Amino acid sequence: MDRFLDDLSVGDRFETPTITVDEDELLSFARRFDPQPMHIDRVAAQQGAFKGLIASGWHTAALVMKLNAEAKFLGNTPMLGMGVDSLEWPVPVRPGDVLRVVTEITKITPSKSKPNFGIVSMTSTAYNQDGQIVFVAKPNCWVPRRPASLQSS
Amino acid sequence: MDRFLDDLSVGDRFETPTITVDEDELLSFARRFDPQPMHIDRVAAQQGAFKGLIASGWHTAALVMKLNAEAKFLGNTPMLGMGVDSLEWPVPVRPGDVLRVVTEITKITPSKSKPNFGIVSMTSTAYNQDGQIVFVAKPNCWVPRRPASLQSS
Repeated sequence: MDRFLDDLSVGDRFETPTITVDEDELLSFARRFDPQPMHIDRVAAQQGAFKGLIASGWHTAALVMKLNAEAKFLGNTPMLGMGVDSLEWPVPVRPGDVLRVVTEITKITPSKSKPNFGIVSMTSTAYNQDGQIVFVAKPNCWVPRRPASLQSS
Repeated sequence: MDRFLDDLSVGDRFETPTITVDEDELLSFARRFDPQPMHIDRVAAQQGAFKGLIASGWHTAALVMKLNAEAKFLGNTPMLGMGVDSLEWPVPVRPGDVLRVVTEITKITPSKSKPNFGIVSMTSTAYNQDGQIVFVAKPNCWVPRRPASLQSS
């Protein structure tokens, strides 16, 4: 069922399924977008500070987007990211890690200029298989109110 | 030439070459990581609010990382992203857009616990071919001081 701004409350909490970090994808993402030794060179990474390959932080961010997008918390209602208040990568993500995401709504701000929309502030936290927090993001999304045609009569 | 924390100053400004946003990559990135109609479906995107396909914000972020990483402002000195204070996508990125990035150092904070390192705060701004700002990020990176073995004697 599609959900709209009207259906959301501060404190609502959404959990995603898991995804396993694939080493080939980790390498190909980093070769294209973040070609640093710790992300693309198994030997150099093994000898470096992290004792092995770690994912580009932007690959982790993209995997979190994937988990959230595929979970379709709002059904087919479009959610547009306007910005993110902060991003952190407290623990490295490694090949074979199993990630899952918990997203919680922290604030809902009706738009003053466009009364059919509001800004939903969230905290998305990604955990690895050991329960360690590997990624925290605080996105702000633009979410429509329920169209008048769908109001219950 | 490799550069270290000691070589950086607040106000230093780095410019990257340009990159053209490829429609096939825009689609394949979004199919994998951000499968929403405005990013993956040409027809639905044309009929939607943006009147055409737009890049996933995470694809834009990854392209900015690529431009910054390949520009190698510090030579081969490793720079580790610790987090980002804010991300914004004020204008959509479309297939064929030509992006370039300007990165400016805004703060340098020597580490208290690890005297051989410091935190460099930056603002990375991406512009399109019309000079519009399409992306702003404020990353904090962990940068080493010049090793004693490389000090000028």
